Amino acid sequence: MSRVTARRRMVRITPAGEIRRPDSLAVEEPLELRIDGQSLTVTMRTPGNDVDLAHGFLLSENIIGSADDIVSARYCAGTDEDGRNTYNVLDIRLRTATPILARSFPTTSACGLCGKTSLDEVHARSRYPLPAEGPVVDAAVLAALPGELRSRQAVFDATGGLHAAGLFTSDGVALAVREDVGRHNAVDKVIGAAMREDRIPAGELVLVVSGRASFELVQKAVMAGIPVLAAVSAPSSLAVDLAAGSGLTLAGFVRGETMNIYTGAHRVARRSATLAI
Amino acid sequence: MSRVTARRRMVRITPAGEIRRPDSLAVEEPLELRIDGQSLTVTMRTPGNDVDLAHGFLLSENIIGSADDIVSARYCAGTDEDGRNTYNVLDIRLRTATPILARSFPTTSACGLCGKTSLDEVHARSRYPLPAEGPVVDAAVLAALPGELRSRQAVFDATGGLHAAGLFTSDGVALAVREDVGRHNAVDKVIGAAMREDRIPAGELVLVVSGRASFELVQKAVMAGIPVLAAVSAPSSLAVDLAAGSGLTLAGFVRGETMNIYTGAHRVARRSATLAI
Repeated sequence: MSRVTARRRMVRITPAGEIRRPDSLAVEEPLELRIDGQSLTVTMRTPGNDVDLAHGFLLSENIIGSADDIVSARYCAGTDEDGRNTYNVLDIRLRTATPILARSFPTTSACGLCGKTSLDEVHARSRYPLPAEGPVVDAAVLAALPGELRSRQAVFDATGGLHAAGLFTSDGVALAVREDVGRHNAVDKVIGAAMREDRIPAGELVLVVSGRASFELVQKAVMAGIPVLAAVSAPSSLAVDLAAGSGLTLAGFVRGETMNIYTGAHRVARRSATLAI
Repeated sequence: MSRVTARRRMVRITPAGEIRRPDSLAVEEPLELRIDGQSLTVTMRTPGNDVDLAHGFLLSENIIGSADDIVSARYCAGTDEDGRNTYNVLDIRLRTATPILARSFPTTSACGLCGKTSLDEVHARSRYPLPAEGPVVDAAVLAALPGELRSRQAVFDATGGLHAAGLFTSDGVALAVREDVGRHNAVDKVIGAAMREDRIPAGELVLVVSGRASFELVQKAVMAGIPVLAAVSAPSSLAVDLAAGSGLTLAGFVRGETMNIYTGAHRVARRSATLAI
């Protein structure tokens, strides 16, 4: 289980007070699939059963029809900065040469692609560094934002099938809310709406998402210069790592009057006492 | 709202009986983004606010930094078979020529890309046609599968942050369960595991997913020859359309003792009477 879950420190805020303790998170790391040495795709996945993943993915893409079409599946020997194999690049050898249309992400990665590498890349790319201080959001205001978001989800009420993202001021005023079947699309739409109103970089705003906080959602916040991201559900390990490295405030499990602050707790004002553990 | 929600017929099964009625679903359709006429990406999205989506996506990809970088965003004149504009291809003109790395899906699409086109493509590609009859699953067995899946989610219990997919026999016996931060990955892993055990095409099995049923998850089931897909949450419009066109049985909102059967209800055995509406 060591690579499936990871522990990260956080501050749990409740009406009765707050507790600092570690939290178990689902691990998210990039997996690059290569076909006969050529990069095919990079997917953000939880490590484990990667060879199963490759089989299923290649069937879905109609590249293989049975397990016999794969001669071998081996991790590349790439290592991270500590010299450990990252196990994040899997090279598939096919029985029959197949013309592959490279899809998805920039093929930046050397064989040593790992979480760290892609984090560095994101840091280098963001053109809007987050403000060192930025807005301070009252914990009670932050706790109310998922409800505010939910109350503006017109289509969810009809279908139960949509994600939502909202941009709020640090006082809790909604500036834009968008719904979409795709989590990333909802965030792209709300950031795009802000950009068209000349609000980007949005160094004073709070982004709220109706589901979990993945690496890619944190990345979108960082790219837009948004310093606070609040999610109704769990963050992944890599989301927390990117938030920490970028100086973003990341809140997860924002439900009712409680929440977990994983990074950047200095931007969350609370009146509550520290509880003894 | 006409393109944001869509109505599809379904059979709602409850312990008291069943009702045939229409259900409102979130619309899911492909959007192709082009930069200066060159295809950049295809995303499955809910129509609406597409120009916002394009702005946010291009910022996330570091292709633009402000709205001024975009000169124009126009839908291509592509039409569906009824001669209506599909509004599913958006061409962005940038102020400064930018070298674009094409990402994601095969650039099959003529300008007239629409849901129908990509559905046809999937039909043509699947090498394992679904059995016309296939397994008959008792409604009570189907209703119990999400609980069976949930009971095998070891990592979710620790983190609250993982999707799950499971392959079951029509009697409800679990053959494989996989968890992942990504919905698609969980399904790829469970299908890949089945493939490595020579169970593909899996014409007698049932695929269960812990969240919603999107187009892409239905596509993965179809590609693996799996005739029944049960989801704990809502399906999208395009998921139902692809299931209907492929002869797949699609159940949504499978919770407690109730569920909605959107397509292929002949594979779900129920004892209950039809209720008057």
